[in-house]
Amino acid sequence: MSDQKQRSVDPAVLEMVEVAATRGLPTIWDRLDAQKAQCRFGREGLCCRMCFMGPCRVTEEGKGAQRGICGATAETIVARNLLRHVAGGAAAHSDHGREIVKTLFLAATGDSKAYHIRSPGRMRALAAEVGVALDGRADSDVAAELARLFLAEFSKQDGTLLNIQRAPEAQRANWLAAGVTPRGVDREIVTGLHMTTMGVDNDPEHLLLAAARVALADGWGGSMIATDLSDVLFGEPEPLRSAANLGVLKEDHVNILVHGHEPTLSDVIAAVSRDPQMVAEANAVGAKGINLAGICCTANEILMRHGIPIAGNFLQQELAVMTGAIDLLLVDVQCVFPALARLQECFHTKVVSTSPKAKFPGAEHIEFHEEHALDCARQIIRMAIDSFRRRDPAKVRIPKVHERLVAGFTTQVVFRILGGRYRPSYRPLNDGIQAGRLRGVAGVVGCNNPKFTHDECHLAMVRELLRNDVLVV
Amino acid sequence: MSDQKQRSVDPAVLEMVEVAATRGLPTIWDRLDAQKAQCRFGREGLCCRMCFMGPCRVTEEGKGAQRGICGATAETIVARNLLRHVAGGAAAHSDHGREIVKTLFLAATGDSKAYHIRSPGRMRALAAEVGVALDGRADSDVAAELARLFLAEFSKQDGTLLNIQRAPEAQRANWLAAGVTPRGVDREIVTGLHMTTMGVDNDPEHLLLAAARVALADGWGGSMIATDLSDVLFGEPEPLRSAANLGVLKEDHVNILVHGHEPTLSDVIAAVSRDPQMVAEANAVGAKGINLAGICCTANEILMRHGIPIAGNFLQQELAVMTGAIDLLLVDVQCVFPALARLQECFHTKVVSTSPKAKFPGAEHIEFHEEHALDCARQIIRMAIDSFRRRDPAKVRIPKVHERLVAGFTTQVVFRILGGRYRPSYRPLNDGIQAGRLRGVAGVVGCNNPKFTHDECHLAMVRELLRNDVLVV
Repeated sequence: MSDQKQRSVDPAVLEMVEVAATRGLPTIWDRLDAQKAQCRFGREGLCCRMCFMGPCRVTEEGKGAQRGICGATAETIVARNLLRHVAGGAAAHSDHGREIVKTLFLAATGDSKAYHIRSPGRMRALAAEVGVALDGRADSDVAAELARLFLAEFSKQDGTLLNIQRAPEAQRANWLAAGVTPRGVDREIVTGLHMTTMGVDNDPEHLLLAAARVALADGWGGSMIATDLSDVLFGEPEPLRSAANLGVLKEDHVNILVHGHEPTLSDVIAAVSRDPQMVAEANAVGAKGINLAGICCTANEILMRHGIPIAGNFLQQELAVMTGAIDLLLVDVQCVFPALARLQECFHTKVVSTSPKAKFPGAEHIEFHEEHALDCARQIIRMAIDSFRRRDPAKVRIPKVHERLVAGFTTQVVFRILGGRYRPSYRPLNDGIQAGRLRGVAGVVGCNNPKFTHDECHLAMVRELLRNDVLVV
Repeated sequence: MSDQKQRSVDPAVLEMVEVAATRGLPTIWDRLDAQKAQCRFGREGLCCRMCFMGPCRVTEEGKGAQRGICGATAETIVARNLLRHVAGGAAAHSDHGREIVKTLFLAATGDSKAYHIRSPGRMRALAAEVGVALDGRADSDVAAELARLFLAEFSKQDGTLLNIQRAPEAQRANWLAAGVTPRGVDREIVTGLHMTTMGVDNDPEHLLLAAARVALADGWGGSMIATDLSDVLFGEPEPLRSAANLGVLKEDHVNILVHGHEPTLSDVIAAVSRDPQMVAEANAVGAKGINLAGICCTANEILMRHGIPIAGNFLQQELAVMTGAIDLLLVDVQCVFPALARLQECFHTKVVSTSPKAKFPGAEHIEFHEEHALDCARQIIRMAIDSFRRRDPAKVRIPKVHERLVAGFTTQVVFRILGGRYRPSYRPLNDGIQAGRLRGVAGVVGCNNPKFTHDECHLAMVRELLRNDVLVV
């Protein structure tokens, strides 16, 4: 990936990569180049570091050891590594749901002024689905019971996840037959970890089924709960206009970038950044206003509910700071490069971490607790305004590239739009599929990897799907 | 470790290593030799495989990359790897406690005939300690509440572990100040996994503190519960005579070897193997009786309660099978070499796995459920008797080496022995320490690693401690 032009198909990225090279700032592609001889064993999952007899490296056949020191085969080693990766991913991904459940509980009890049940209808529908009594009960009461029930989805030791009942009957029967119907989220993750330690499970197929069970625990537990309750707490998204790419940053505004995966703080930041008092304070230091933008999943959450623009995706996080226009970068958890805090040596950008789970050497840590969300948001916005005063205009270089977009198409919205206001239905979609004009619907989710040209794979896949009459979400 | 004489200080091991070499059977030392060029990055924790941008390898200074692709430093990478190792270990180790709690629940409800509350006094003392009401309540009632309370120690989302109150006040204050007081066992493990995924925690100190918290969750949660409740269910150990090393195997008996970490099945096997009906069936196929012996922690559990001898420790598991005298090897979880099942190609030994968490290709899987423990134990012992009939006497080679021992010194027993029956006390020990004749007490726990001469390190340490007037447990 040494050729800069190969790094992305996005002109904004190519422009900033050039800027970084000129200024001698290393980017993720340079760090990838420094790792040029990536270990083949590690890359193929054939390196085992589960215990301290190793590390062991095996080959599937031919020369070299074919078994680990304990006797594990290549198949066992690969399957164990995969299961541990899935457990790690599920732990991170499902934690998002856990935090949202706790926030729902705060909203229900009134222990935080920042959160409210914005979609009581959606909340009551969810409660009814999982058997919570509704008759004659206040929203707060129902929501508290729903929160307790969903929190137990993480801790439950036996029995299956409530949301599993949403799956088609045949699918549930398949899961049951394969032994992959998930129990509680934490339980499946911890079991997966136990199974992968030295001298426990060695049957590759059994290990892969456990990986499926852990993944289902996240998908039908943590993730699904996060999606549903975000709508309850932050409101159901509606289609709205916004924009994406580094060009959404504004030279004459205080630019705050939110980055990570959890919407609880950024949702409050979005509201507080529009507070006239805050805007007046920004004006007082010479800014025309406060411009909030996002990176990664935190960005998506506030995009589809507040129209907050997206400054970029995973591989653009450093480049955003290198525009010299970010006054404050607010991070929570996941996908946040450790490299970011170090850019503070070259730019005025203040990096603020907020999660008790994620600290970054060099970043300012303001631990976020939902109970004091509003105060926390105000403190952070004031830090950004203060930081704006130290911005060096000579260093500012914002690529004039952004795309307009419409976001906020939830299943509920699609249902309404397709059938029309008076007869909401999926019928036009179903008819199209049954008639063979549409070959199906594909969801494209996931992030970039610098090993491949930025955004190229996603675009190639989406184009090919559209070319073959597949709808893309 | 190519020189066979360097492999162990134990004559039984050296004899069997020689036998293995003569017969062309690979052992763990041969597989270690095959891994001779162990990867330096992996060995030093400087290889990161947390995400799929990598694997990354860094050096602390000098040539080569100094940061991972995400920007993680050597310190961050080492700390993340350690935390993930600790999470894996805690998941495995604490699961032992979880299974014992479930067994207590079965014993309390009477859902399994195999388990009873053998130490009601101990059970009631534990219940009182954690605030369970005792007055006028039956043992089964108290035990069921205690089981529910302890099961919640694994699932609890917030608050601290009950057993933490056992720690000295100053220690508790230290833990609180460092933020390492553990919440529920599963919660800490899952949090540790989340923190180590890409782009989450990057502060080495913060990661190491999380590792301490996970370890404390196992130690004061899973482990301590397992120890206490094993006494309740299986009886409080008392000093008893037994023996250790491969010489405990008997040429003219059906030899059953239990191996792993969980006592629930092996405790029942120990009882059923003495059943006259079973012994008669063994006699009927020409065996003088049924000889039960153990490897690793499962062995310790039934040693200190039933006097069942120990056939060997971690590095001796294959050698035990290579004696040709093991008719059935019963394994549960942890430290079980995948290599064992493969020895069935050379020996008549039947390998039986029993845990839903651990399957071994080639082994017979008889899933153990506590509800049917007695039936399961009988089925397995009959398989061993059947296997005895296929034993090839020409292949039998049992080293005539074993040591006599006295086991079963619990804290309760030591308290009673030191002070005498009428005035139990730690006083003689305390007096010795205060007078300076004893420098202290050291616990020596942990297993071998083939990288070091078998048993040499443990012996050297114990001898040095004794030489310096330190009591060794």
